[in-house]
Amino acid sequence: MTELVILNAPVVSLIDHMGSDRSVTRAARVSLQGLNEEEKAAAKEQGLINYLMKNRHGSPFEHAVCTFYVKGPIFTFREFMRHRMAGYNERSGRYSVLPAEFYLPSPDRPLVNIGTSAAPEFGPGTPEQYERYIARMMSLMEHAWQVYEDNLADGIANEMSRLAHLVNLCSEMYVTINLRSLMNFLSLRIDSPDSLVRSRPQYEIQQCAELMEAAFAEHYPMVHAAFVANQRVAP
Amino acid sequence: MTELVILNAPVVSLIDHMGSDRSVTRAARVSLQGLNEEEKAAAKEQGLINYLMKNRHGSPFEHAVCTFYVKGPIFTFREFMRHRMAGYNERSGRYSVLPAEFYLPSPDRPLVNIGTSAAPEFGPGTPEQYERYIARMMSLMEHAWQVYEDNLADGIANEMSRLAHLVNLCSEMYVTINLRSLMNFLSLRIDSPDSLVRSRPQYEIQQCAELMEAAFAEHYPMVHAAFVANQRVAP
Amino acid sequence: MTELVILNAPVVSLIDHMGSDRSVTRAARVSLQGLNEEEKAAAKEQGLINYLMKNRHGSPFEHAVCTFYVKGPIFTFREFMRHRMAGYNERSGRYSVLPAEFYLPSPDRPLVNIGTSAAPEFGPGTPEQYERYIARMMSLMEHAWQVYEDNLADGIANEMSRLAHLVNLCSEMYVTINLRSLMNFLSLRIDSPDSLVRSRPQYEIQQCAELMEAAFAEHYPMVHAAFVANQRVAP
Amino acid sequence: MTELVILNAPVVSLIDHMGSDRSVTRAARVSLQGLNEEEKAAAKEQGLINYLMKNRHGSPFEHAVCTFYVKGPIFTFREFMRHRMAGYNERSGRYSVLPAEFYLPSPDRPLVNIGTSAAPEFGPGTPEQYERYIARMMSLMEHAWQVYEDNLADGIANEMSRLAHLVNLCSEMYVTINLRSLMNFLSLRIDSPDSLVRSRPQYEIQQCAELMEAAFAEHYPMVHAAFVANQRVAP
Repeated sequence: MTELVILNAPVVSLIDHMGSDRSVTRAARVSLQGLNEEEKAAAKEQGLINYLMKNRHGSPFEHAVCTFYVKGPIFTFREFMRHRMAGYNERSGRYSVLPAEFYLPSPDRPLVNIGTSAAPEFGPGTPEQYERYIARMMSLMEHAWQVYEDNLADGIANEMSRLAHLVNLCSEMYVTINLRSLMNFLSLRIDSPDSLVRSRPQYEIQQCAELMEAAFAEHYPMVHAAFVANQRVAP
Repeated sequence: MTELVILNAPVVSLIDHMGSDRSVTRAARVSLQGLNEEEKAAAKEQGLINYLMKNRHGSPFEHAVCTFYVKGPIFTFREFMRHRMAGYNERSGRYSVLPAEFYLPSPDRPLVNIGTSAAPEFGPGTPEQYERYIARMMSLMEHAWQVYEDNLADGIANEMSRLAHLVNLCSEMYVTINLRSLMNFLSLRIDSPDSLVRSRPQYEIQQCAELMEAAFAEHYPMVHAAFVANQRVAP
Repeated sequence: MTELVILNAPVVSLIDHMGSDRSVTRAARVSLQGLNEEEKAAAKEQGLINYLMKNRHGSPFEHAVCTFYVKGPIFTFREFMRHRMAGYNERSGRYSVLPAEFYLPSPDRPLVNIGTSAAPEFGPGTPEQYERYIARMMSLMEHAWQVYEDNLADGIANEMSRLAHLVNLCSEMYVTINLRSLMNFLSLRIDSPDSLVRSRPQYEIQQCAELMEAAFAEHYPMVHAAFVANQRVAP
Repeated sequence: MTELVILNAPVVSLIDHMGSDRSVTRAARVSLQGLNEEEKAAAKEQGLINYLMKNRHGSPFEHAVCTFYVKGPIFTFREFMRHRMAGYNERSGRYSVLPAEFYLPSPDRPLVNIGTSAAPEFGPGTPEQYERYIARMMSLMEHAWQVYEDNLADGIANEMSRLAHLVNLCSEMYVTINLRSLMNFLSLRIDSPDSLVRSRPQYEIQQCAELMEAAFAEHYPMVHAAFVANQRVAP
C-alpha cells in the first residue's frame, strides 16, 4: 500500500515577478503629466499610490505582475479558479498519475459551524470530534487511493481511474496575476477585521491568500501599505 | 444508508438566450455601412456571417448570449471553469448539503488508453474490466457518502464534511456565455473529424458540449452553419 | 459645402436585453439551496438581491445582459472602451464614409475649471466665453470636414482621409454588457452625491451613463434599487 | 504659433518584461509531468513549445508578460484598445495639456484604395496627390492647434479645449500584455504572407505591431519561432 502524505497547509512560493512600486507610479504618471511642478513634488511615491488606491484608479496596478506556485487540495483550487483575471496551469490527472498527497486540517482548524447555514461562523470541535473526523477521513483516503491504484493496475485509463480522487487530494499549479487582480483576490479571500467589506472565505483558501499577501508585501511594500490603509478595498 | 443516484451523462438545458442570427449581422453592419447598395444586396445574412467567421471578425458574435443550466460531475466542472469568458454560479458545498448524485460511465464509454500518456487514444475495455471498475467505484462511493453523512451527523461543518466528496459527485451550475466564447469552448471541447485543429477533450465534457451545441444550432442556425463550414475554428 | 449636424447629447437606446431580476436570484439560489425553509421564506426577491449586492457576491449579476445602441463623440467612445468587460461594435471609418455629425456642448455644460488640474471642478463660463468657444469650434469643424471631403474627392483612401476627423465627430456602436459590468461602469462614470466612492467622469460620458441607467432601472428594478441602496458600489 | 512636431512612425519600446521561453515550458510541464523519461528527453524546449502552439494549448503562454511604451496617433490607439486582454495607461487630455505632436504619413505610405470599400487594397498615390494631402492636413493641423491654444487661453477647461484635437494627434501609453494575448494581437494586426488567416490591419498599427514583435522575438526567441512556424496562428 502506498504511504499517503498529509499536508496541513497549502504551499505557496513566488516564482517570478515583474516591476515594483515604481511600475505603478510610472504608469499613473503618464496620464497625470499635467500636474504642475509644485504638485509633482508633493506627489511623492507613497502619496500617489494612496491617491490611486483611494480613488479607484485601478489600471496602473496592472503593470506589476506575479507568478506563484501553489500546492493545495482540489476543493481549494476550485475556489481559486473562480477568479478569472489570472493565468493558470494546473497538473493534469489525465496526462499524469498524481502523487498520494492529501490535505487534512490541523487540530486548530475550526470544525464546527456555530452560526447558521447562510451565515456560518466557525468554532473549534472537541478533541474527540477531531479524532473521529480524522479517523473517518484517513480510512476513506486509503480506500480511495487503493481504488485509484487498482483502477490503474487493471488497465483503466488515467482519466477514468481518477474518478476515485477525493476533493482533498492535493494538486499543484502556476498562477500569474497582476496586482490589481491580486488585491481583488485578497479582498475576497482574506477575512480581516480591517476590511471595509467583510467576506467569508474558507479557511484553506485564506491560508493560501495570506502566503501570497506576504510575498506581495515584500516586493511591493508601498502598494501593499496603501491597500491596507484603504481598508483592503481593491481599486 | 442513503440511496445513491447514478447519472451516466450530464444534464444540459438552455434556460435563457438573447438575440438571434440577426443580432450578429446587425452589429456587424454598424461597421460595414460603407458597403454600396449592390454589395449590400449581395451581403445576404448567411453570406455576411460566413464572411465574419472566416475572416476572424469575432466581436459581432458577442451580442448574442445564452444561459445554460448544467448538471455534471465535479471533475468535468473543473475543466469547464478553465474557460474564463463566461459567468458561472455553482451550487455550494459550503452553504448546502449536496444530494447523493454521482456520475459513472455507461458501458460504451471507452475505458482503456491505447495510445501513450502524452497522446492518449481510447478504446473500449472488456466487459469484465468495466464490471470490476464499477464495483470498485460503487463501493468507494458508498463509503465516501457514509463518511460525509457521518461527518455531518457528528456536528462537523458542511465545508469540512465535504472533504469526503469524490470528484465524480455531481454538482449543478448556471453558465452565461456569448456566442464567440461558446464557439471557442466548442472548438476545444468537441473533437470532430471536421475540425481544422483537432483537440482531445475528455469524453464527459464533450457530452456537455454536444448538448450545448444542439441548443446553439437550434437558436442561431446561420451562425452555427458558418462555424461548421469554417472547420469549427472560432472567430 | 455639406451641412454639419450638431448633437448636444449622446443618443442611447436599449436594443435587446436578457433576463430580469429573477435571473439574478435564480443563479444565486443554485448556490444557496441549503437555506432552510424559514430562511428561504424570508429571503424574498429584493432581500436576496440586497444581500448579494452588499456582500459583494457579484457573479449572479452576470446572468442578465443588455445590448445598447450608442451615438456620441469619439472622445467619449475612447473613455467608454476602456471598460473591457463588454462587447463592442463601432462604425468603421475605414470601411465607410462617416456622416457629418459633431458634438458641441449646450450652453449649460460647464466650461471652466475652477479647481486644479489634478482635482478639477467645473463651473459655467460666461455667455461670451461660450459664444467664442462655439465660433472657434464651428469654424474648425467646417475646415476639418472640408479637408475630409477634399481628401476623398482627391482619391485618398477612407482610412487616410479620416486623419482629418476631430475627436468631437460622432460615431455609433453597439455595446453588450452584463449587469455586473454595467454597475461597475455606472459607479465610475456617474458622479453622484449618493456614491460611497466619488469619481470624476467627464460630463459627456455621464450623460451616456445616465441614459443607460434609466433603461437598467426600468428592466431590472430590484437590482437597480439594491445598487442605489448600496451607495452605488458595484458588487 | 507653436511649432508642430511631425512623426512618421509610432515609437515603441519594451519597458519591462517577465520570464523567458522557460516560463512557458515550466508552466506547461506542471501538467505534463506524466511524460515518461524517454518522452521527456525528446520533449526539448523548442519541441515542447511548438507542440503547445500547434495544439492550441494557450495557457502556458500567459506566464510571460511584457510592458511596452507606445507613442502614436489617436486613431491607432483607438484600434489598439479594442484588444481587451491587456492593461493600459494612456496620457489624459483632461488632466494635462498635450504637446503639439502629430502623425503624418511618409511618402511611401500607400494613399489610394485600389480595391473596393469592403475589401480595400492600397496602392501608392502620385507625388502630387501626396503633396496636396500633406498641404491640406498641415493647414488643418495648424488651425486645430490654434483653436486648442485659444480655447485654453480663453479659460476653457482642458477637457473642453481638447474637442479641437484631430485624431492624428499623438498620445502615449503603457501597455502590459502576456505572450498569449500579444500573439493574438500580432496575428490580427500584422498582415503577413506567412499567415494562415490573412487580416487587413491599417498600416500604422502594423508599424506598431512590428516593433512589438521585434522585442518579443528578441526576448522569447523560441516562442516567437514557434508562432511563425505555426503560420502566425495564436494558440
